[in-house]
Amino acid sequence: MNWELIYSHAVQWVKEAGENIRLSFDKTLNIQTKSNRNDLVTNIDKETEQFFIDKIRAVYPEHKIMGEEGLGDQLENLDGIVWLIDPIDGTMNFVHQQRNFAISLGVYENGVGKIGLVYDVVHDELYHAIKGHGAFLNDKKIPALHNREVKDSIIALNATWVMENRSIDHHLLIPLARDARGTRSYGSAALELVYIAAGRMDAYISLRLSPWDVAGGAVIVEELGGIVTNLRGEKLDYLSKDSLLVARPGLHQTILHDYLKDGKW
Amino acid sequence: MNWELIYSHAVQWVKEAGENIRLSFDKTLNIQTKSNRNDLVTNIDKETEQFFIDKIRAVYPEHKIMGEEGLGDQLENLDGIVWLIDPIDGTMNFVHQQRNFAISLGVYENGVGKIGLVYDVVHDELYHAIKGHGAFLNDKKIPALHNREVKDSIIALNATWVMENRSIDHHLLIPLARDARGTRSYGSAALELVYIAAGRMDAYISLRLSPWDVAGGAVIVEELGGIVTNLRGEKLDYLSKDSLLVARPGLHQTILHDYLKDGKW
Repeated sequence: MNWELIYSHAVQWVKEAGENIRLSFDKTLNIQTKSNRNDLVTNIDKETEQFFIDKIRAVYPEHKIMGEEGLGDQLENLDGIVWLIDPIDGTMNFVHQQRNFAISLGVYENGVGKIGLVYDVVHDELYHAIKGHGAFLNDKKIPALHNREVKDSIIALNATWVMENRSIDHHLLIPLARDARGTRSYGSAALELVYIAAGRMDAYISLRLSPWDVAGGAVIVEELGGIVTNLRGEKLDYLSKDSLLVARPGLHQTILHDYLKDGKW
Repeated sequence: MNWELIYSHAVQWVKEAGENIRLSFDKTLNIQTKSNRNDLVTNIDKETEQFFIDKIRAVYPEHKIMGEEGLGDQLENLDGIVWLIDPIDGTMNFVHQQRNFAISLGVYENGVGKIGLVYDVVHDELYHAIKGHGAFLNDKKIPALHNREVKDSIIALNATWVMENRSIDHHLLIPLARDARGTRSYGSAALELVYIAAGRMDAYISLRLSPWDVAGGAVIVEELGGIVTNLRGEKLDYLSKDSLLVARPGLHQTILHDYLKDGKW
């Protein structure tokens, strides 16, 4: 498999999609409401996903595609080569802020991440990695991640996760938020993943994400030695929704063991 | 008083200070720890405050200066003209991320905000206002703020505010975080204030801020019709630490009345 060629196509298409999104800011956004009122979707989401599907189908007709908008394939497994695409990760930020959103794209082979791209469209910052070949922010190589203590760490964690919720006993997360140097919430899983990769934050916790939110950023984080699991410390299957714990090596183990009781809840 | 002239000086100095900060990124940051380990301070903080003090003293020797680093005057009142300066608001972001921080500068006359500047140094975005003359992001006029319902609002709110704390019964804030469309925490009060001004978020709550964190952004928000008070609905005195509730008009009253019980706690 020529991963360099697939990668160069992916980079080209992501940049082209980003340019289209920047141009669209002048148009009125036609916003619909999906099942959850927090889950805004715009025409641009759908147009961008369709753009990727058309490009991939034309060059790689044998590849499969899983996208947030559901315009790709309905997959029951990750056999073969699968593109996992979130055309606009952080749609609420996109609609309200026209910033702090990203295009996320992962290419997986038999469930193993091979290529990861996260494109911060507004700031023209492309985070990218091919498994085994290093991770980059634009042209700059990102250094490997090392351990950091909780008290020196910034944790990405939404306020609603330390309130009573259906996914986890919030009393497990409160001590972590208290012990950390600080907590942040930027509102885009893909950007929060690459913020961990770039060393700007140290751990990221979310209670419910979809495979396309995580697939691209996970390749980049793992290439740098970061650890990506659910909140019980299990590998993600990239077929179903799951919780997420992403962190520097060492710090991931500390959070899992000292705060999340090794998943025994 | 020639506010246009003071304003043009302030803009010039903020841009110059921002350029110096951008250049400093290549130098090693010499980080000290202040009383609180969350309150990082760098050489650049101090150098930037001293830069402003030198400039102001040279042109306006009769003006007073209150700055985060304490290199200005020790003030017991806001009589006359006072510059309130945070050379780097969001120091933790500055150190960890080299982004999501700002220079904040307010010029007050007898306690009334006349000029507000918040400069997002990395993205070269200057938010600015002279009282009564509109508010701008770089050269673009920012439209006035109007009411928005809580369920349609993004609230800037740190996770630690919905956990038990010394400043407020967190059970007052939990329903607000639950009812909002979303919550965010970007880690710079000055930037969170101008995000409200620019309509990117709708309300901002903090439990303990200093006058220089708020003084610049407050002029900009108020120029657009936004409301700036503490969490009991009282005006800030800009001499002491206080809590903060900033929001669109209407939304501010809703949050104060429906969630914060009109300050009766």
